[in-house]
Amino acid sequence: MDKLSTLTRFKASCPFLGRTKTATLRTLCTKASPSFPSISLLTERATKCPVMGPALNVRGQEIVAGYASIAGTGDVAQMHKASGVTVPPGATVEMCPHASAARAAARTATDLASAATAEKARLKTDTAKAAAAAGCPFHKAGAQIPADHPRVPQSAAAPAPAAASTARAGFNYEAFYAGELDKKHQDKSYRYFNNINRLAAKFPVAHTNSVKEEVQVWCSNDYLGMGNNPVVLETMHRALDKYGHGAGGTRNIAGNGAMHLGLEQELATLHRKPAALVFSSCYVANDATLSTLGSKLPGCILFSDTMNHASMIQGMRHSGAKRVIFKHNELADLESKLAQYPKETPKIIAFESVYSMCGSIGPIKEICDLAEQYGALTFLDEVHAVGLYGPRGAGVAEHLDYDAHKAAGNSPHPIKGSVMDRIDIITGTLGKAYGAVGGYIAGSDDLVDMIRSYAPGFIFTTSLPPATVAGARASIVYQKEFNGDRQLKQLNVREAKRRFAELDIPVVPGPSHIVPVLVGDAALAKAASDTLLAKHNIYVQSINYPTVAVGEERLRITVTPRHTREQLDKLISAVDTVFTDLKINRLKDWVREGGRAGVGIGDAEPAPIWTDAQLSLGTPSAPHMLRDGQRAVVDAKAVAAARSRFNALLGPATTSSNKTAINGMTFTGMQMRTGTGPVAIDKLDIPIPPPVATAA
Amino acid sequence: MDKLSTLTRFKASCPFLGRTKTATLRTLCTKASPSFPSISLLTERATKCPVMGPALNVRGQEIVAGYASIAGTGDVAQMHKASGVTVPPGATVEMCPHASAARAAARTATDLASAATAEKARLKTDTAKAAAAAGCPFHKAGAQIPADHPRVPQSAAAPAPAAASTARAGFNYEAFYAGELDKKHQDKSYRYFNNINRLAAKFPVAHTNSVKEEVQVWCSNDYLGMGNNPVVLETMHRALDKYGHGAGGTRNIAGNGAMHLGLEQELATLHRKPAALVFSSCYVANDATLSTLGSKLPGCILFSDTMNHASMIQGMRHSGAKRVIFKHNELADLESKLAQYPKETPKIIAFESVYSMCGSIGPIKEICDLAEQYGALTFLDEVHAVGLYGPRGAGVAEHLDYDAHKAAGNSPHPIKGSVMDRIDIITGTLGKAYGAVGGYIAGSDDLVDMIRSYAPGFIFTTSLPPATVAGARASIVYQKEFNGDRQLKQLNVREAKRRFAELDIPVVPGPSHIVPVLVGDAALAKAASDTLLAKHNIYVQSINYPTVAVGEERLRITVTPRHTREQLDKLISAVDTVFTDLKINRLKDWVREGGRAGVGIGDAEPAPIWTDAQLSLGTPSAPHMLRDGQRAVVDAKAVAAARSRFNALLGPATTSSNKTAINGMTFTGMQMRTGTGPVAIDKLDIPIPPPVATAA
Repeated sequence: MDKLSTLTRFKASCPFLGRTKTATLRTLCTKASPSFPSISLLTERATKCPVMGPALNVRGQEIVAGYASIAGTGDVAQMHKASGVTVPPGATVEMCPHASAARAAARTATDLASAATAEKARLKTDTAKAAAAAGCPFHKAGAQIPADHPRVPQSAAAPAPAAASTARAGFNYEAFYAGELDKKHQDKSYRYFNNINRLAAKFPVAHTNSVKEEVQVWCSNDYLGMGNNPVVLETMHRALDKYGHGAGGTRNIAGNGAMHLGLEQELATLHRKPAALVFSSCYVANDATLSTLGSKLPGCILFSDTMNHASMIQGMRHSGAKRVIFKHNELADLESKLAQYPKETPKIIAFESVYSMCGSIGPIKEICDLAEQYGALTFLDEVHAVGLYGPRGAGVAEHLDYDAHKAAGNSPHPIKGSVMDRIDIITGTLGKAYGAVGGYIAGSDDLVDMIRSYAPGFIFTTSLPPATVAGARASIVYQKEFNGDRQLKQLNVREAKRRFAELDIPVVPGPSHIVPVLVGDAALAKAASDTLLAKHNIYVQSINYPTVAVGEERLRITVTPRHTREQLDKLISAVDTVFTDLKINRLKDWVREGGRAGVGIGDAEPAPIWTDAQLSLGTPSAPHMLRDGQRAVVDAKAVAAARSRFNALLGPATTSSNKTAINGMTFTGMQMRTGTGPVAIDKLDIPIPPPVATAA
Repeated sequence: MDKLSTLTRFKASCPFLGRTKTATLRTLCTKASPSFPSISLLTERATKCPVMGPALNVRGQEIVAGYASIAGTGDVAQMHKASGVTVPPGATVEMCPHASAARAAARTATDLASAATAEKARLKTDTAKAAAAAGCPFHKAGAQIPADHPRVPQSAAAPAPAAASTARAGFNYEAFYAGELDKKHQDKSYRYFNNINRLAAKFPVAHTNSVKEEVQVWCSNDYLGMGNNPVVLETMHRALDKYGHGAGGTRNIAGNGAMHLGLEQELATLHRKPAALVFSSCYVANDATLSTLGSKLPGCILFSDTMNHASMIQGMRHSGAKRVIFKHNELADLESKLAQYPKETPKIIAFESVYSMCGSIGPIKEICDLAEQYGALTFLDEVHAVGLYGPRGAGVAEHLDYDAHKAAGNSPHPIKGSVMDRIDIITGTLGKAYGAVGGYIAGSDDLVDMIRSYAPGFIFTTSLPPATVAGARASIVYQKEFNGDRQLKQLNVREAKRRFAELDIPVVPGPSHIVPVLVGDAALAKAASDTLLAKHNIYVQSINYPTVAVGEERLRITVTPRHTREQLDKLISAVDTVFTDLKINRLKDWVREGGRAGVGIGDAEPAPIWTDAQLSLGTPSAPHMLRDGQRAVVDAKAVAAARSRFNALLGPATTSSNKTAINGMTFTGMQMRTGTGPVAIDKLDIPIPPPVATAA
């Protein structure tokens, strides 16, 4: 600690130390053990390391620019494997002296170049002169940097791009940024992005940083695999050839075309609303719509579920309107708060159908009742539900009147008194179950027209590319016409939950498709995710604060209709092993501790919102989990419906609808189902075998 | 007015009139002339009209859902033409009784269905009962709607989707929306989106609502035609086949891959900064970055140019930090405001390089000087400059040290003391000159990492699709390697400005590529735009308030390297005709009136920022405007460079680089230039003929 205080003393005036994070200094000084040597030693070791050294020298710039992303856990694991290094169970990148040192060296190289540049300029300023005069031992104009100066690598081979070399007076912005990042490191909320490249032809498999290293993805929100559906890709190829890439302008200036208008009409019909409007994302849709409504409606009060998504929270904040938070899904709390304001006061109740991190479902019908009683608008975020619920994929609001909507088919007219009809504003995404990108709102003509006319986040931005919106529309049409993906997804979700329950692995209870496996600790959750990736080639991102509360960290597993039984077996077994190796709490442990995040508190698992009848269970058309080597079903009728939307503008599709290869692409995992009825099970659907026994 | 007061009296209690806009009532009552009959008469006329009637009946739902977009000016003009209706010069959709009536009918049909639905529900409420008791003549439970009731069309053939049928107490939201829309109609700022579908193979030509009706586009921000560049489309086709459509998640959860990391590295290198970060759009990039910085930097003051884009204004507002507005490009004003705060106070100067609506260019270097002096960060929006300025397309900041950057080539290292190096934060778009979609920031490692770690607008949104970012990267690489598009664009801009000047047509002076033709009146600007489209098949959107100040309305013309001399001739002649027909002020008129928006105030046109030498004028490699039938140049070296970025992941491109057809696509307007040097002019470049004489 003596060394730390010395270093800290010089920090304020020395350009090198001033750029060094206090946490780094502390590490430097307090952890000078064989496993945590000083940075210069680490750097030296890294460059001498047969694994990291060459990478450091050869890929200098890339490492500096994006190291954390490039050398993710998988990357390091691969390098270790290649060089025969044995990684202990539960090891993370942070624990590896080579990887840590390489990261530090990369960072240091940047800092060094940056500091060296800054030094010249700084010396011109009084501040720097004063610092030099104050006797900073490392700070002499033009002096050689001493070999033992902290943060100076002895062998940083490649020069690196430096930060802006301004000789600016006043506030130290770079130190401020570094401090904010330190906070993230210290509370373990700093995020390292994994490099995951999902392969269209091998869904749900992705390659990592190396094209040769493949992993099974269990956390993507491409919930149905529509990102590689043949008719989606076919439509996009055609639209790309005809209309090129970008839209070229805002919706008002050259960026509004038939593809955009067609998508909005499709969305309006999907939700049986008069109008819809597409945005860059649903984050933007929520933000723009709530901020516009909240700021324009006179004296508006916004009622917001505690678990609402960040985009809604931002929109409400940006509106400047008063916000009233009600407890998650608690109607009594909401009502008591609504009752405090006159009926004539404009109000918006903002909530979600499926809450994505815990899998709970909002009491939509009951909230509509309260809204009518207290004169409030209903704003329902169906982001994690569109494509997945309802007989046509319009979301949970549609699902609640399943049979009526099924009977009404593709009529654009509202079903009077239905839950979906009673919702004023539905927002949804094109980026999850529809496998595309973008977001939207649906509602009355004048509501949509007002947002179109007033929301800066809609008005002043380039519209989505024609090919993108065409792909999204093809996906929506396909899912309107084909219920099989939704059914099979839910069946697989049930199976995954059942298998976890057998092994006493804690899953947050819920009636939806979300499978949140509780870990309950930030470091453990990250270690579990890293180990699954490194040792089992399974990618499930850990979900930590601030996305979930501290202590409720989890692995959020998304099960798709395209995951096979063998892939599920592997997942269950790997999670089980990791739980054992890392000593993560099982369900019985949470019960003993009084429960957490809904786990182990004695409540029964709620009934899934998709009933057995809705899944066609017990009938000949019941869905069945795929086996490895089986081809997924592509519904010919749905393909034909999707194509029909584009034939007028893109010309008739040239390939026949019962081929596996569409538009020259071969989809190795898919086979077109030519039967148009819901019952025609093709020969690839085989009975589900009994579950594989797994060691506890 | 007697009728109006009667109607207004009942408005508050009658469910039909309550939903009727006051302005509509006024129109109904005061304009009952042969050309403005009552709505029921208009509707009747519309359905009897040989042109609009069948459309109304057949396409009922589409018209209701999106009429204003579907039947734009071009649409109506085409229908008129087909049925032999002669349209007088300057006529707009609003002036046509058929089109207006059809719109009204569509609107009325919606309202009717909506009101009829609401009626039943409403009658259950005390409010409605009271209204009935109060004796509203039209309001009786279960009563037949009288034939002469206003807002009831006599012949609305198709039923229409209705608004949500809630029986809600309290505030009348629908009336509020309608009122807000009325304001837009009344101040002429209501926007009708034109249906423009830009054709990749015929750039800059688009089809309208009808695939058979083609127009020449002169206002797209696909500034260089990169939206249809062959290597861009080839890369996207390849990426789409390999990685499918959507990214499937946020950057933190399954939505981060090699395409994203590669694009960010490309952008960092482009701006010679250590790091870059990609967002859904540059609107989001500006909003997220400024709101995050402004809210986190302690006591931060934001200094903002009056002409800054809406996205920056929103970001600054959302930050909650103090904002200080300085006069457009006025350094003395900025300095006097900076000087009012201590140097130690964190400050951000937010400004643009090219201001998109007037074409002025910010004094970047001088603002850097002030920033250093007063301890401020510089935040430079290069949205309308990236791809277009500098020897590699990095923007105006690069252009200001043209030769140094040209000499440095693709080095990622900053050029010490250069303007680009002195800017702390550069933001740019992928959606304009790069012809894609998305936005980004570039800056120091820790700045970028802090925004990555803290900005909700980045964190909580699905990342852009891999194929989209691959296309953007291919475009950036191509433009880094090939200067010809930039040069030819600027040459064409010069020519367009010269031709307008010859005809005394007022262009707002400026040194950039923006050609703002001043009209100076909202209705005239819209009429000019509508007439150009309807009579000349030329699409230039009018720019009205709030995008520009009232009285400074304009036609903002964007000239690309792909516009031909014949297309320019047609544009100049058409604008000239429209100016004459609509009696729009020429330059001499503005001089007489004392000038407006920089026009006619005696200042000389500033020298273009691209010098003659930078355009290679007077050398054998000088660019030449294309002629009709000529093929545009595609640079083989740039294509090879773009392909090289993707070969490792997408496999080597299979087509030879000197073919016009790439990846099976035939680009009728392009020819690959196989010479790698800048001088190799192919045989398609022919001398520019003297300008065609045009009637004044």
